Amino acid sequence: MCQLLGMNCNVPTDICFSFTGFRARGGLTDHHRDGWGIAFFEGRGVRVFLDPQPSADSPVAELVRHYPIRSLNVIAHIRKATQGDIRLDNTHPFQRELWGRYWIFAHNGHLRDYAPVLGGRFRPVGTTDSERAFCHILQTLAERFPDGPPDARTLHATLRELAIEIGSRGEFNFLLCNGERLFAHCSSRLVYIIRQAPFSTAHLSDEDVSVDFDSVTTPDDRVAVIATLPLTDNERWTQIEPGTLLSFLHGAPEALGSTRTVAQPVTPPHGAPAPREAL
Amino acid sequence: MCQLLGMNCNVPTDICFSFTGFRARGGLTDHHRDGWGIAFFEGRGVRVFLDPQPSADSPVAELVRHYPIRSLNVIAHIRKATQGDIRLDNTHPFQRELWGRYWIFAHNGHLRDYAPVLGGRFRPVGTTDSERAFCHILQTLAERFPDGPPDARTLHATLRELAIEIGSRGEFNFLLCNGERLFAHCSSRLVYIIRQAPFSTAHLSDEDVSVDFDSVTTPDDRVAVIATLPLTDNERWTQIEPGTLLSFLHGAPEALGSTRTVAQPVTPPHGAPAPREAL
Repeated sequence: MCQLLGMNCNVPTDICFSFTGFRARGGLTDHHRDGWGIAFFEGRGVRVFLDPQPSADSPVAELVRHYPIRSLNVIAHIRKATQGDIRLDNTHPFQRELWGRYWIFAHNGHLRDYAPVLGGRFRPVGTTDSERAFCHILQTLAERFPDGPPDARTLHATLRELAIEIGSRGEFNFLLCNGERLFAHCSSRLVYIIRQAPFSTAHLSDEDVSVDFDSVTTPDDRVAVIATLPLTDNERWTQIEPGTLLSFLHGAPEALGSTRTVAQPVTPPHGAPAPREAL
Repeated sequence: MCQLLGMNCNVPTDICFSFTGFRARGGLTDHHRDGWGIAFFEGRGVRVFLDPQPSADSPVAELVRHYPIRSLNVIAHIRKATQGDIRLDNTHPFQRELWGRYWIFAHNGHLRDYAPVLGGRFRPVGTTDSERAFCHILQTLAERFPDGPPDARTLHATLRELAIEIGSRGEFNFLLCNGERLFAHCSSRLVYIIRQAPFSTAHLSDEDVSVDFDSVTTPDDRVAVIATLPLTDNERWTQIEPGTLLSFLHGAPEALGSTRTVAQPVTPPHGAPAPREAL
């Protein structure tokens, strides 16, 4: 399985610290060696760095680790290929344009025999189940709202409906962002943390690196970090309840109506702690 | 005005040498300081590195200069803003997906009062005339050929028609690539060179750097490099006749019918040498 990393903030923030630990999982502390990618939104623009090499060895990852790109929304992914060869066009995150905004998508999981009927507007370039799901999501949004984005509540409800539909085909943890909101769907494993004042010192799980957030922030800063597994070993991460779609805005989850994408709460897999209510 | 750089090859080739000289024009040997970008096709996939900083100072450009990404098709651009603020979403090259392939576009020039009627399918994210032109090109292709790409001759003829239409609004030098063919339109300034056996040593115009291509190639290699101005000072570059759309495939221009995009040959600007026939 792959690993996901997302960040949503109320002020542009660099992700160098979290990326340092995350990157190590791409071949160093874990076995996700089949490529990696990261997308940074800056205003309406987006920069996507992709590399079909393992992130632990990648010169591009070395750049990203040291180059403090400040962003309100970031999505990163390291890949353990389950469907689709190890190729650049199968490397997450994927990018498309809808309604004059860029959309970025990354997926962790496996969809069985998943072949949605796709019109001509959004077609996969590669061969992954993930890119097919992304095209299906955007096609549905474009068909239902041809003139532009609906209000936040309707958008969230539509994505929730799609998460239920696509999630019925298998494991469907994903991060999706339009540069404003970051949507996080947990079907099995996804955690998050909100960092805000009073800030403390965090220590990575995957490398012996610490950062004192108090020295690099202002009291009004708020940052949500979302990941497949906790990135630090001295902070309290919140497990997103499996079967939940959260919308993050300005560094915190929004209350936009029901977040459930399964009919009944499910038992957390892998002996994970009992989920807390996320909102 | 901006500067363009393109490469189209018959075997995957790195662009480190040409990029070294090109990059220097982004703030060092020339004044194009308003951002830069480069796109590398690898198979069906594409990697786009964008930076709204001057390329001469950019850590991302330093990476690209030293990281030998081997590609059949590359498009790069350094920007001198004429329309649109200096922002990431106004940074070339631009990317979209059509027919399950990525398309990459970069423009040098200035279109006056250019506001094409755009449907919903391709919308600009930023505010440049260039991105509007790109969306108009793709929208026209998608409308005329909804089921997939036409044959090469029809595609070239359609792009030629679009170059005539859009070029009537101003200076419209562009590079456009779908990962297979690289289209180069010259409305005022664009040159190219075909490097093939017997290879020789080339010396950059913008930095004191040479490369002996004979030592890094095989006899069957063929590489076309297209640029706004020659990148080397000891090779013979061919001026593309203003009002010409060329299609490069496997490192050479193709013969696909008329390449003219103006009714009458025009006088080359800026005292350029008399154009040679390009095909």
